[in-house]
Parts: sequence; C-alpha cells; structure tokens
Amino acid sequence: MVKERVTVIDIAHAAGVSKSTVSLVLQGSSLVNEATRAKVNAAIRDLGYVYNRGAANLRQSKSKIIGIVVNDLTNSFFAELAVGVDAVVQSAGFVQFLANTGEKIERQREVVASMREHGVSGLIISPARGTEAADLAPLVESGIPVVLVVRDIAGANVSSLISDNHAGAVAAVRHLIERGHQRIAFLGGFSDTAVFEARMRGYRDALVEAGMPVSESLIIGSAPSRAGGVTAVEQAMMLADRPTAALCFNDAVAFGVCDGLRARRLEPGADFAVIGFDDVIEAKTAVPALTTVSVDPQGMGQRAAELLLKQIKAGKAEPEAIVGSVRLVVRQSCGAAVERKREALA
Amino acid sequence: MVKERVTVIDIAHAAGVSKSTVSLVLQGSSLVNEATRAKVNAAIRDLGYVYNRGAANLRQSKSKIIGIVVNDLTNSFFAELAVGVDAVVQSAGFVQFLANTGEKIERQREVVASMREHGVSGLIISPARGTEAADLAPLVESGIPVVLVVRDIAGANVSSLISDNHAGAVAAVRHLIERGHQRIAFLGGFSDTAVFEARMRGYRDALVEAGMPVSESLIIGSAPSRAGGVTAVEQAMMLADRPTAALCFNDAVAFGVCDGLRARRLEPGADFAVIGFDDVIEAKTAVPALTTVSVDPQGMGQRAAELLLKQIKAGKAEPEAIVGSVRLVVRQSCGAAVERKREALA
Repeated sequence: MVKERVTVIDIAHAAGVSKSTVSLVLQGSSLVNEATRAKVNAAIRDLGYVYNRGAANLRQSKSKIIGIVVNDLTNSFFAELAVGVDAVVQSAGFVQFLANTGEKIERQREVVASMREHGVSGLIISPARGTEAADLAPLVESGIPVVLVVRDIAGANVSSLISDNHAGAVAAVRHLIERGHQRIAFLGGFSDTAVFEARMRGYRDALVEAGMPVSESLIIGSAPSRAGGVTAVEQAMMLADRPTAALCFNDAVAFGVCDGLRARRLEPGADFAVIGFDDVIEAKTAVPALTTVSVDPQGMGQRAAELLLKQIKAGKAEPEAIVGSVRLVVRQSCGAAVERKREALA
Repeated sequence: MVKERVTVIDIAHAAGVSKSTVSLVLQGSSLVNEATRAKVNAAIRDLGYVYNRGAANLRQSKSKIIGIVVNDLTNSFFAELAVGVDAVVQSAGFVQFLANTGEKIERQREVVASMREHGVSGLIISPARGTEAADLAPLVESGIPVVLVVRDIAGANVSSLISDNHAGAVAAVRHLIERGHQRIAFLGGFSDTAVFEARMRGYRDALVEAGMPVSESLIIGSAPSRAGGVTAVEQAMMLADRPTAALCFNDAVAFGVCDGLRARRLEPGADFAVIGFDDVIEAKTAVPALTTVSVDPQGMGQRAAELLLKQIKAGKAEPEAIVGSVRLVVRQSCGAAVERKREALA
C-alpha cells in the first residue's frame, strides 16, 4: 500500500494549531512562540513530513516575469518583436507575459498597473498612440526597469530602442528616384505619431535633395494596416496626376497597397513600384517579394530584451537611448528586379 | 508644513514590535496575542495612522488576470483569437496576459506554472503539439478554471472549444468537386495533430462520398505556416499527375500556396483552385480574396472567454465540450468567381 503524503493540514491537526501557524513555523517566522514551535516541530518529526523547500522558494520567489506591452497585436511586426524578446528572456530563465493595448491609453494604464501589481522584473513597452511622459511617470518612479521600443517618448527618462526611421525613408525614396520615378507617394500611417513624422521627414528630405517638388496630395495617411493600405492607394489612384511609386508607412500598408493595385489590374513591381518598412517574415515570401526598409523585428525584440536584462541585473541603470540602424532590402515589388531582367535581355 | 504620512514602520517602532506583527494586526490575524494586539492598536490611534484598506485589498485580491497560452504567435490566427478574448475579458474588468509556447511542451509547462504562481483567475490554452492530459493534470487539480481552444485533449477533464474541422473540410472539398476538379490535394499542417486528423478525415470522406480515389501522394504535410505552404505546393507541382486544386490546412498555408503558384506563373483562382481554413482578416483583403472555411478566430476567442468567465463566476463548473460550427466562405481563390463570370458571359 502506498503511504499517503503528509500535508500541512495533518501537522496542524496533530499539533492542535492552525494551518497558518504550521506555515509560519516552516518558514522560520519569529511570530510563533517557542512552545507552539516545539509542538509543531514534534508533529513534523512524528509524521515524517518532508518540507518541499524548492516549491516554497518558487512560491515566495521574486517573479521571473518580463512584461511586454504592444499597441497592435494584429500587426505581425509586433508578434515578431515579441518572439524576439521571448527568445532572449527564455534563455535568461524568465517567462514573458504579453498584453495588447489596441492603441488605447486607458487600457495601457490598466495592463501596466496589473503587471506592476504582479511584480514583473521589467517591462518592454511599445507605447500606445498619444502616450506622454506623464503617463509613464508612476511606472518610472516605481523603479521597475523599462525599455521603450519602436516609439520613444520625449522626457520619459527610461531606456529606448527605436529604428533610424529617417535614414530608412531617405534610402527608399532615393532608390525610387534612381529608378526614374517622378511621382512618388507616401502612403499610410497615423500622421500624429513620432514614427510617421520621422519617416515622412526622410521622404521629404530625399525629394528635396533631388530637387523634386513635395506634393501634399501625394501624402495620404491611413490606419497602419493592410486595410489602410488598400484605402490609401485607392485615394492615390484617383488623383489627376497619379503616382507611379510609393513608400509605404509599414509592410502591412504595403501589402494592402499591392492588394489595391491588383484590384485595379495593376501588377505591383511591374506597373507600380512599392516599398514597405519593417521587413516582416511575409515580406520575403510574398509575390512579388516586398522591397522594404528592414528594421529586423525579431532582432529588435532581442536587442530590447538584452537592454532590459542588463538593467535588471545592474539594479538601477542610467537610461540609454539606442537608435538601431536599418537597411533597404531590394526585392521585387519596387520593380528593380524587373528592370534588372530587362537590362539582362538588352 | 505638510504632515508626513505615518507608515507601518512608525507603528512598529512605537509599539516595540516587528513590521510583520503590525501587518498581521491590521489584517485582523488570529496569530497575534491579545497583549501585542492592544499595544499595536494603541500606537495606531496615537500616531493617527490611516489604514489604506483599498490598497491592501488590491494587494491581497485574487488577481483579475486571465491568462492565454498560444502555440504560435506568428500565425495571425492566434493574434486574432487573443484579440477576441481580450475584448470580452476587458468588458468584464479583467486584464489579459498572453504567453507563447512556440509549440514547445517544456515552455508551456513553464508559462503555465508561472501563470499559476501569479494567481491567474483562469486560463485559456491552445495546447502545444503533443500535449497530453497528464501534462495538464497539475493545473486541473489546482482548481483553476481552464478552457482549451482550437485543440482538444482526450481525458483532460476541462472545458474545450474547438471547430467542426471535419464538416468544414467536407464542405470545402465538395465545393471543389462541384467545380469539376478531379485531382484535389490536401496541403500543409503537421500530421500528428488532432486538427490535422479531423480536417484530413473530412477531405477523405468527401472524396469517397463522390466515388473518387484518395491518392496518398496528394496529401502533403508541412509546417502550418506561409513558408510551409510554399514548400507543400512545390512538392505537389512536381508530381507526374499534378493536382488542379487544394484544400489547405489553414489560411497561412493557403497564402503560401498562392505565393508558390505565382512563382510558377500560375494564377491562384484562375489556373489553380485554393481553399484555406480559419478566415483570418487578411483572407478578405488578399488578391485573389481567399475562399476559406471560416472558424471566425475573433468570435472563437470571444466564446472561449465567455465560457471561462462563466466558470470563474460559478466557482467550480462541470467541463463543457463545445464544437463551434464553421462555414465555407466562397471568394475568388477557388475560381468560383471566375467561373461565375464565364457563366455570365455565356
């Protein structure tokens, strides 16, 4: 017959005390008087109770949780970012909990408070649209290490890791100009975000640098999603003087632009040049393969996790502001491959 | 001059006891003897300490967290599922924490343990490939309400919400047969999962029902991803007797199949019929729009969340096994629209 495992309740019965008192004795608490302690210890010996210190330590341990808060889980950029973070925190013995704000500041407040309440070791946040330094102040004051990714917030006084959005946009537009495009649109994205502002500035600077006019009608905002891209390109193609190429706010918008072009019987990469921004996994496998400014989402997640772990280990660290370099990855959607083929045939 | 806030430490000093003893008195614990309790209460009165019961309740409260554990965050199906769950738990005043297992059982064990440790109110789990009832036993025994989604596990003794995968596959293959296809492939997916088994069985049953042969060479597994779809269709197109249509394991595979077809200069929907499974957001906007068996990922997340909340409110509830109905959404990738156009022209 198998001997049943002795529990804390058995000890409590035998010693004539409460379960809580037994727990306090097991934890070595000074709140229990000597006589009671002796009674409990005698019962433990008599019943052959084995105290599972490992399990107890786990229960009492400081959480080994890294929180990640993203603003749009349906954009695969953020899923890839989270997968990158996960790879690093996992190796370091942490578990990652993710929360999605859907761009809502109120929800962000709730999920951040909840993660604090549950004692996360550190937080990686891609802040919701419109987040201000004051919104993060309670978190920063609590001393929990924080790394902002994707979107920086002026005056937040925490570490941040963003991409060189300006340089990426300049490289993309220069490439389109070199391919001979004269009417280049900037499609998609919410115009009130810092990321939009930086990419837009790069777009303008590259046009100005080439002595080309900047036409406000060619700058068409939209939700930074595939559906937004469809809407933006539809609007662009209704212009009297249509564009022949577009730098898109992100890859999701670029895929939507390709969809919208096909719906008009135009082939992206042949009839219209499309460049995205991010380099999500799908960019490589899509047909035509998407030319895009690579910010390497998984790599960005890994770097953000490393930055956060460094801070967690160091206790309190000085905030670092890192601007990750980007590179233009030329594939087929910008028509470069088509042109290279023509050159080869000539 | 502003009066400084009196803290528990001040009370402890004044009463000559430890901070823990003060906390126990504040909590009304029976572990403190009467004399000590009287001393502490006197100090509380003398110093004018205001006990912030709201904050204390929050600290002690059962967590208002719903955990969701998914097996592949890079598949937008799971992102949409999580967004559906979030909408419901948010309305009910809960916060959702998500963890990704990447199909690893060991990681699943860690994240589930971590969520338990942090006292989640309930868990929604899409179990990693190969999970057995025994893997979930410690969780089930802990009494935390659990709902399995997408993949059920025999003998797990918890509630589950899956889709009618068999009926969906039958409907899709019947549709392809009605369109005149004789060589229909089943592409993608890991063959050792219950979802694959059910969809595959529906595929076979529809062929047998129509008196058509089942050719093992037309059943080609792969990772259930876009890249997997590209690989699977490449293999299919190398067969001597090529298929003209395919039911794909899921939408991600179907998009990959479309990519692979285009790479061979075949137009999905015109030269080859493609049907997916899931109905992710992108299915509607893709060109050609994807014909697919809709399991309504966001709706599925909502229903799973409602099922879980019902259990949380009821305390301990009997497990329910729900099989959600699915429907074939005919769009363009199966060629039906093309054919309808031909009929209109005739």
